Amino acid sequence: MLIAKPYLLFLGDAPDPLAAKTAYGVARWRPEDCVGQFRLPGCQADTGLPEVSIDTAAALGARTLIVGVANRGGKLAAAWIPELLAALQAGLDLANGLHQRLADLPELAATADSLGRRLIDVRHPAGSFEVGTGQKRPGQRLLTVGTDCSTGKMYTTLALEREMRGRGFDADFRATGQTGILIAGAGVCVDAVVADFISGAVEALCPANAPDHWDLIEGQGSLFHPSFAGVSLGLLHGAQPDALVLCHEPTRPHLRGVPGYPLPDLAECIAANEAAARLTNPKARCIGVSINTAQLSATEAGRWLEDTQNRLGLPCVDPLRTGVAALVDRIAGLG
Amino acid sequence: MLIAKPYLLFLGDAPDPLAAKTAYGVARWRPEDCVGQFRLPGCQADTGLPEVSIDTAAALGARTLIVGVANRGGKLAAAWIPELLAALQAGLDLANGLHQRLADLPELAATADSLGRRLIDVRHPAGSFEVGTGQKRPGQRLLTVGTDCSTGKMYTTLALEREMRGRGFDADFRATGQTGILIAGAGVCVDAVVADFISGAVEALCPANAPDHWDLIEGQGSLFHPSFAGVSLGLLHGAQPDALVLCHEPTRPHLRGVPGYPLPDLAECIAANEAAARLTNPKARCIGVSINTAQLSATEAGRWLEDTQNRLGLPCVDPLRTGVAALVDRIAGLG
Repeated sequence: MLIAKPYLLFLGDAPDPLAAKTAYGVARWRPEDCVGQFRLPGCQADTGLPEVSIDTAAALGARTLIVGVANRGGKLAAAWIPELLAALQAGLDLANGLHQRLADLPELAATADSLGRRLIDVRHPAGSFEVGTGQKRPGQRLLTVGTDCSTGKMYTTLALEREMRGRGFDADFRATGQTGILIAGAGVCVDAVVADFISGAVEALCPANAPDHWDLIEGQGSLFHPSFAGVSLGLLHGAQPDALVLCHEPTRPHLRGVPGYPLPDLAECIAANEAAARLTNPKARCIGVSINTAQLSATEAGRWLEDTQNRLGLPCVDPLRTGVAALVDRIAGLG
Repeated sequence: MLIAKPYLLFLGDAPDPLAAKTAYGVARWRPEDCVGQFRLPGCQADTGLPEVSIDTAAALGARTLIVGVANRGGKLAAAWIPELLAALQAGLDLANGLHQRLADLPELAATADSLGRRLIDVRHPAGSFEVGTGQKRPGQRLLTVGTDCSTGKMYTTLALEREMRGRGFDADFRATGQTGILIAGAGVCVDAVVADFISGAVEALCPANAPDHWDLIEGQGSLFHPSFAGVSLGLLHGAQPDALVLCHEPTRPHLRGVPGYPLPDLAECIAANEAAARLTNPKARCIGVSINTAQLSATEAGRWLEDTQNRLGLPCVDPLRTGVAALVDRIAGLG
């Protein structure tokens, strides 16, 4: 699934920044791919990109409008439809990470069809996948894994891409969730793939590559999450990672969405991921830890990072506070 | 998904018994649910059930024709269509475990629609599932797990149901694959569920029940299979098994479909399944092993069972040679 660039980011009538977090993600990680943002009256989100109309965006060469806003329940709001139609008329494709499909709205489908535009619903994988083969393929691969869902795997993976590219590595972010796909312009929403094809879809996402090329694969869920561990394990096996980075958010009372399930111990979580990963890549090893310390004070965060680093004997970073240089130092030392 | 009983088993023009293994499975495990078999000229399979015409089957009260034959590539053969149409005309629903959908054949779809009959494609789960909650629910549950795919999990689970019911247990087979679903008349093809919902679909398949009721859940795949382990893990977490039975076929040179992947050691496989299962049920334990010794001589089989039993300290059976009484003895001693 390839989304044509550059983008116009549509923030709609987002009532707060959180509702537009997809737009913020794209603006943060791919500003060079965006001609600007387009907002409806009353919008309370702002990515800081130039404000442009749909026609101006088209004149600036925009190829795709990204629905960068989430409505309650993952629905497309009625107020957005006239603007989405206008974008199609102006020559743009539409790309959307919500549960509801653009293609399921008859007016959008008919207009796109008559104009030859694409409606790209990234949560609904198009095409079919093969069953995973487990066959070892060339190229280096890194996968972020988590103690839980929503611990910063996408953010960490993108930060690694930026740092590695900055140091001259040949490295590509590989997206496995809707926001990541809109950022990268390509990818597979692995939790939406039919169960039989999880590892096969991931094998297709990060295929054989040059021996010194790094695929940096966005992880999903956690081996310890009772709702989603199957996705995480299929992803781990399909990725054949040489390197793992464990992502953790230290202030949660329990795993996301499942009261009564404590967060796993970090060392135990690393050991379980390494053991499972070695089925398809015997060299798999965890090379560091990424902690999301947003809920902690600077002092607490520093203590957490230092304690964890000492306890595990692995570099321990917060991408936002410390950057990920320490992880890339470790990657540079692999071989 | 509930399939109306009794059944007419359709064997078509099966060129050999293996092509009709679904029909054999239903005839073996649910003969009381079958009014008979219907074969086309030249059919080389025979379940031993009475030979009946479609009209006779209808007169005997048959409610569903089961497509009990597999064509190359999982396709519905053109030669079967007139008979499938005749069955719809005679008042029967159609149920099918092949990849190709009955519902995708326009002639069948139109006829079923006009007559108000159901076309049941068990490989394609109907309806939607919730995300798994991991919440502990009452009732006892047993899951068969495997060193590999196709090691006898369905057969073992059905043998346990028969033995347990014979001893007065309140026990139900829960099907997770197409043949099992046609045998049970209900179930969920877990490998065809969207990845996000694997454990949730299994939670729905074997919901809360009476404290002394046993759900006997058909396993799929293996935690050690690089193509399918995600399915196996989601199934394990959703099942919340109190008891596990490991199924194994001892003569394979490698895991099914993936040369280079050796079969896991049995003790290691048990330990990995118990560790993973304990996320959602801390009491989970393996209570025995089921070996498919069909490829071994009686002497070799006996030695294999005895050696394995001594090595693992668990009852070790072959459902076909020894029955599963030793496993049910162990189940009876639980609690």
